[in-house]
Amino acid sequence: MQVAHGNLLTKLPSDSSAEVFELLHERAGLKIERIVSNGQASPPGFWYDNPQEEWVLLLSGSAGLTIADTAEEHVMQPGAWLHIPAHCRHRIEWTDATQPTIWLAVHHEVSNET
Amino acid sequence: MQVAHGNLLTKLPSDSSAEVFELLHERAGLKIERIVSNGQASPPGFWYDNPQEEWVLLLSGSAGLTIADTAEEHVMQPGAWLHIPAHCRHRIEWTDATQPTIWLAVHHEVSNET
Repeated sequence: MQVAHGNLLTKLPSDSSAEVFELLHERAGLKIERIVSNGQASPPGFWYDNPQEEWVLLLSGSAGLTIADTAEEHVMQPGAWLHIPAHCRHRIEWTDATQPTIWLAVHHEVSNET
Repeated sequence: MQVAHGNLLTKLPSDSSAEVFELLHERAGLKIERIVSNGQASPPGFWYDNPQEEWVLLLSGSAGLTIADTAEEHVMQPGAWLHIPAHCRHRIEWTDATQPTIWLAVHHEVSNET
């Protein structure tokens, strides 16, 4: 049986002018993707508010992530993970300006969960 | 809102005599865990045959993983990922003998999928 495989730390996108999303695996209710940031941040005043829950892992680089209604910024270094419940508003304050920041994001649909 | 968070590369288990599984997140149909190996391998002749599909990522260390019915061994280095379909038999031939091998495993239930 052939299986899909790859490496999150290699074949980085050459264009660093925008965040690059790469779908790695998708099934009903589940999506796994790599995100590569190069200094990008959420626009001022913008908050993500996603219907899916998200489990996110930082593999390389660094980033600051804020959860709405908390004063705390999560400074993420390699190996750091965070579980963001559905409709938990959050924003990326900053990503590393000196090297690519590589994320793994696991999106999970929970709307039909009993 | 408080969110669960941690770092996969820190707080490694002190006991290296067996693989250590740590549940990071669990929802209906989804389980995310960290696995730390210290030279362990699957027993001779043993094959994993799981009803869930598994998406696995190696963060640190190294390992060799074989898929049944293929002659190929996947030598996994940091950043390497592999998607293992449900009931795709596989085994771990070896893990790094000189340092901990840290895995992220995403298990996804597919039995009720339409």
